[in-house]
Amino acid sequence: MLFNDTIAAIATAPGAGAIAVIRLSGPDAIDLITDHFKPVGHKKISDQDSHTIHLGDIVFNDQIIDQALVSLFKAPRSYTGENVVEISCHGSTYIQQTLLNQLVATKRCRIAEPGEFTKRAFLNGKMSLTTAEAVADLISSESEAAHQLAINQMRGGFTEALKDLRSQLIHMASMIELELDFSGEDVIFASRDELKSLLEKLKQTIKELLDSFAYGNAIKQGVSVALLGAPNAGKSTLLNALLNEERAIVSDIAGTTRDTIEDRLIIDGILFRFIDTAGIRETSDQIEKLGIVRSIESAQKADIVILLIDAVSTTQNDLSTTISLLDDHNIDRSRTMILFNKIDLNQDLNLEVPKNIEFLALSAKNKIAIDDLKHQLVQRVLQGKNGANETVVSNSRHYGALHNALQEIFELESGIAQNIPSDLFAISLRKVIHHLGEITGEVSTDDLLGSIFSNFCIGK
Amino acid sequence: MLFNDTIAAIATAPGAGAIAVIRLSGPDAIDLITDHFKPVGHKKISDQDSHTIHLGDIVFNDQIIDQALVSLFKAPRSYTGENVVEISCHGSTYIQQTLLNQLVATKRCRIAEPGEFTKRAFLNGKMSLTTAEAVADLISSESEAAHQLAINQMRGGFTEALKDLRSQLIHMASMIELELDFSGEDVIFASRDELKSLLEKLKQTIKELLDSFAYGNAIKQGVSVALLGAPNAGKSTLLNALLNEERAIVSDIAGTTRDTIEDRLIIDGILFRFIDTAGIRETSDQIEKLGIVRSIESAQKADIVILLIDAVSTTQNDLSTTISLLDDHNIDRSRTMILFNKIDLNQDLNLEVPKNIEFLALSAKNKIAIDDLKHQLVQRVLQGKNGANETVVSNSRHYGALHNALQEIFELESGIAQNIPSDLFAISLRKVIHHLGEITGEVSTDDLLGSIFSNFCIGK
Repeated sequence: MLFNDTIAAIATAPGAGAIAVIRLSGPDAIDLITDHFKPVGHKKISDQDSHTIHLGDIVFNDQIIDQALVSLFKAPRSYTGENVVEISCHGSTYIQQTLLNQLVATKRCRIAEPGEFTKRAFLNGKMSLTTAEAVADLISSESEAAHQLAINQMRGGFTEALKDLRSQLIHMASMIELELDFSGEDVIFASRDELKSLLEKLKQTIKELLDSFAYGNAIKQGVSVALLGAPNAGKSTLLNALLNEERAIVSDIAGTTRDTIEDRLIIDGILFRFIDTAGIRETSDQIEKLGIVRSIESAQKADIVILLIDAVSTTQNDLSTTISLLDDHNIDRSRTMILFNKIDLNQDLNLEVPKNIEFLALSAKNKIAIDDLKHQLVQRVLQGKNGANETVVSNSRHYGALHNALQEIFELESGIAQNIPSDLFAISLRKVIHHLGEITGEVSTDDLLGSIFSNFCIGK
Repeated sequence: MLFNDTIAAIATAPGAGAIAVIRLSGPDAIDLITDHFKPVGHKKISDQDSHTIHLGDIVFNDQIIDQALVSLFKAPRSYTGENVVEISCHGSTYIQQTLLNQLVATKRCRIAEPGEFTKRAFLNGKMSLTTAEAVADLISSESEAAHQLAINQMRGGFTEALKDLRSQLIHMASMIELELDFSGEDVIFASRDELKSLLEKLKQTIKELLDSFAYGNAIKQGVSVALLGAPNAGKSTLLNALLNEERAIVSDIAGTTRDTIEDRLIIDGILFRFIDTAGIRETSDQIEKLGIVRSIESAQKADIVILLIDAVSTTQNDLSTTISLLDDHNIDRSRTMILFNKIDLNQDLNLEVPKNIEFLALSAKNKIAIDDLKHQLVQRVLQGKNGANETVVSNSRHYGALHNALQEIFELESGIAQNIPSDLFAISLRKVIHHLGEITGEVSTDDLLGSIFSNFCIGK
């Protein structure tokens, strides 16, 4: 056992419910509960089998706190690999808090830090670091796509491929280091061609993974859509047209909070976050100018920029001005989508759009082409997917490590090309191995683990 | 089995947590989960023992929804007395909702109504109606006293004594009804003296229980304290002085919401709800008059009325006017408490208080005598307790049934005194028995059960 203290936390969502679960993990977990649980039938809890459930009274200072179910998980057959007890009690906030307080008051356990159960699971070798991170993603996922991403990552995901390449690299590195021991003798254990081809394969894999990050991150955080358009262009009508049909889906998910500045909407399992902005056009009004600055900033940060245009009142000049304003602020045309609204009122729309900007004519009010819009939004996201779900990177820490590994591979390749001595490029090779190891946690530091697990919720 | 359908619900508090529990109960519960759960080690779930826990994947339409723990409870060894399955899944709102939706989509279970698990437990004979009601009270209790009341009620509480008296009454009633069969022969099977003494004992018990309701209800709902006083009397300073020391306790309990018009405070385990009101005094200002009407109404509804008086600026005339205003509105003097604030600024306080109104001099700002105030508040509540916790009625339905039983006993007694024929008072006797039976659920109707269980939370 790595840890000699026992931790405790409320593992279910905060607030009152029918039941709540308090979780204990550590060497003293089972003995502690044995002393404060009077099971029906007077059996001794610590003598019971792992993975069994027992009904009884939780008693502290001769007072019954609750009648509860106690589940036993004996080390190493538990989530953390330690002795684990789960107390399933009545879900009043009073009982939850009193039970936790009383447990801690025995001084035989302490309140767990966020993610500490999963951190112990990782450190006790029950799961890799990417799996542990996937647990946190799984708990916070709000959409089907984000959930599927997390499930895939939990089950290995892209790390299996990397692990294999990494162990080939480790073998290669040992060979090269062996050469160094025989440095006077000019022997070569590691074929440079093999090394080159391995690096090539690795580069290819990493590049694909890096490319998938935009998609993975958008899925995980939700796809941000900046909605630009003059106040009369029909922004809220458009949002309502989109929301109306999907509202059932959004509100079905309990706990989904609608941000005051965002409209959140799940289309085909993908979460879109619509950010409403002021319109952008030439103006001399100072306050309006401020609004435009904010619109531009939203557009620059967004995954997709929708320019909503009133098909009745907008002139070609208005449109061209707006497009050039976007160009001026480096908002990539491929990210932009022009929607001509109120198309039912102007069937002979005659506005010209540059070839490299996608556009669609619709009526938000009469729900013409709303499905086309949804389809195009989803397609834009899926374009970034590049193949199977399994090879998607959604975690910025993984992205960073992959990026560092790739940079180091470039160094290494240029070193090999320049015929630098093998003791120099052996160092680069070790760095590549190090960065790849950071992803799955084969290499880790306390700082790294601290920053990963502190983002977890309590009780996991 | 009384029910042939299977019910399902999320049993933990709404929102995301580390884990969430979905509960299934009914004849198909175990078979349903067997078809959608792939346990580690490929064992067949329905073949496993009751009270065991299994790790595996929850699978619908070949898609893994989550890796979860499944707990089995086989009929009749479960909360409801039916087959019960608890799925302990990762606590994302997406997983909770998807899992529940997929279960329902199989058409082999439906979403449970509020309290339906406990209703089934009652109807399957696993618990009495008072115990079932205590479960709901337990879940919603926010303070130690309310919690203890619910625990006591869950463990039988006052119903044991009543049950015994009720079965004696039933015996008595059968004897009297037997006499009716032999009505021509003038035999007496039931001693009238015994009946009178039984009724006397019952009356005594019921009266004590009815008296305890004010206390029980206050404990359950929280003790309401109307805080009356002019704006400069120091109401918010007083609340802060009370809250400051106790805030830690209040905020320790997660999920405690502070109502906008109430300050909630737990003192010695009892919840007090302070309702701030406008001051009351003679005035011609119309708006101020409205405020006074509202103050009076609050005071009439409150368990305790605190009259906060500025010890520096208040005259004897002001005080007397205020007291007579309370008298005029039938606010019982025994409920009222006068607090002279700012006592540090006026050591020679010389205001006269009627003998039957309790008073206390303090300084909210300098925290003089705040502990005395707390002590007096708690004492006022405990006065109503009248002995042991076990004999406290806190449920207004029980209060109503007891009240009806008592009225019927009065009828019965006067009937016996008037020597009415035994066939007439046998009806009264049956009514007493009926009302007592309503409490524990030995007598129940669908309407009654519907109104009780609809107040439960979902999943219990």
